[in-house]
Amino acid sequence: MDVSSRIERALNEAVTLAEVPGCPPRLAESMRYAVFPKGARVRPRLCHSVAAACGEDHPAATDAAGAALELLHCASLVHDDLPCFDDAPTRRGRASVHFAYGESLAVLAGDALIVLAFEALAVAAARSPLRLAPLLTTISRGVGMPFGIVAGQAWECEPRVSLADYQRAKTGSLFAAATCAGALAAGAQAQPWRALGDWLGEAFQVADDIRDVAADPVLLGKPTGQDVALCRPSSAKELGLEGAIQHFDRLVARAIEAVPPCRGEAQLRALVRLEAERLVPKAMSDACAMETARVVA
Amino acid sequence: MDVSSRIERALNEAVTLAEVPGCPPRLAESMRYAVFPKGARVRPRLCHSVAAACGEDHPAATDAAGAALELLHCASLVHDDLPCFDDAPTRRGRASVHFAYGESLAVLAGDALIVLAFEALAVAAARSPLRLAPLLTTISRGVGMPFGIVAGQAWECEPRVSLADYQRAKTGSLFAAATCAGALAAGAQAQPWRALGDWLGEAFQVADDIRDVAADPVLLGKPTGQDVALCRPSSAKELGLEGAIQHFDRLVARAIEAVPPCRGEAQLRALVRLEAERLVPKAMSDACAMETARVVA
Repeated sequence: MDVSSRIERALNEAVTLAEVPGCPPRLAESMRYAVFPKGARVRPRLCHSVAAACGEDHPAATDAAGAALELLHCASLVHDDLPCFDDAPTRRGRASVHFAYGESLAVLAGDALIVLAFEALAVAAARSPLRLAPLLTTISRGVGMPFGIVAGQAWECEPRVSLADYQRAKTGSLFAAATCAGALAAGAQAQPWRALGDWLGEAFQVADDIRDVAADPVLLGKPTGQDVALCRPSSAKELGLEGAIQHFDRLVARAIEAVPPCRGEAQLRALVRLEAERLVPKAMSDACAMETARVVA
Repeated sequence: MDVSSRIERALNEAVTLAEVPGCPPRLAESMRYAVFPKGARVRPRLCHSVAAACGEDHPAATDAAGAALELLHCASLVHDDLPCFDDAPTRRGRASVHFAYGESLAVLAGDALIVLAFEALAVAAARSPLRLAPLLTTISRGVGMPFGIVAGQAWECEPRVSLADYQRAKTGSLFAAATCAGALAAGAQAQPWRALGDWLGEAFQVADDIRDVAADPVLLGKPTGQDVALCRPSSAKELGLEGAIQHFDRLVARAIEAVPPCRGEAQLRALVRLEAERLVPKAMSDACAMETARVVA
């Protein structure tokens, strides 16, 4: 079974745990709506890639770690879209959860997805119980306080924030959790894998900033221009579009250098290059360089 | 060290994990505000009582389970108080979290407390790793879908709901998780302890309904009359005040019968009686009976 199918199967199995007769049906429906149809599944794919590169020996542990990371990511999207934050009407090309189900169910769907992520880890631990504690610690730190994605979102509520702290927490933390969790699920040490996640997370956030000013909202599946509209810190705002693209390229190069020695080293580096091209297509960089040349001329 | 001090120490250690230099300071402050000063700590006390009755051998596991239960309870209070639910201005006798810190930070404080609960379990698992998976499963099911407290809150968003399903999920589930977690933390089987938690949870919810119509809001630390105002299912509404008090007494009697054979059986039964008197003081039942007699006469 390919990685993408494994990821969707694990997510489906997790969400199905919530869909038992006798449960509140609209909450169950809103949870499935928040997770399917699939997004890019960047974090679980990263986790699977690292586990494979480390010589995966307990596929169920990787599947559960990947599902937990994606469920937590989906939960954060549901809560970030709420009226008290972005009040985003669309997500992944259709109505956001609170637009489709109301604000109360959106709050609860996010809460229930967070809890489900940890339950999914516990279920998988039946076969590899000694890997549970480090996986749980790593993933919970990627999400919670003081430096996880919830902390990242909270920086939007603070009067002062450094762009680096904000991006590291808002995006980098769950990427670092994804690389570390991939290693732990395969019985390897987590620490050597942290830098790869950190660099990729920062690159991903910069790519998000770039697409917020340069992409087509229909293709992106969510509104653009939000960073300026909501006064959020943004690399594209701080460095300009061309500067942000150069910054992105440097971060990807550092991520590739940060891949630790392992069996699947070459393959993993190639994957990172592919992912970078998907995030900021060369056509976009070229168009931006041409536009700059035109303006300068 | 007595149980109350152990509970406060474990909660403080958990909340301190979030308060690291470089974290978003207002989120850290709002989390501490949501957890301290102490509430009744009913769920961790129940967990500790069961662990003691089972012959506790890993106190750190009980401490972590108790802290996780209380952090999850505090998170649910923060989210239940949000404008899209009760919009409660006060809690535990002072401003609710969203009144004190704003709605955005209240959403994030709830999220971060949920994650912290699971992280606290993982930290404690260093000494008793094989107890982590069952504890994590039990506690996550008490909170999440399909039958945990998040599901209970979601029943308030459904067009049809049975009072029993609502109360079992909204309150009973975390009480059952508390008794089961106490047993698991002490290395005992969880299943025999579920009924005690179920009965106590239902009794506690009925007591809450009773106090919502019969208590002084200043003494209670939160507004009364909310069940009617917010059209929530309520035993006091369905059975009348005297009927609800009789129902409460029956539930407490069933809880006492449900204590399984164990070393600390007699002590645990006495504790349940004490707790019942704290929840619905005999003076309140007597006053209600006298009032009924007066109206009938």
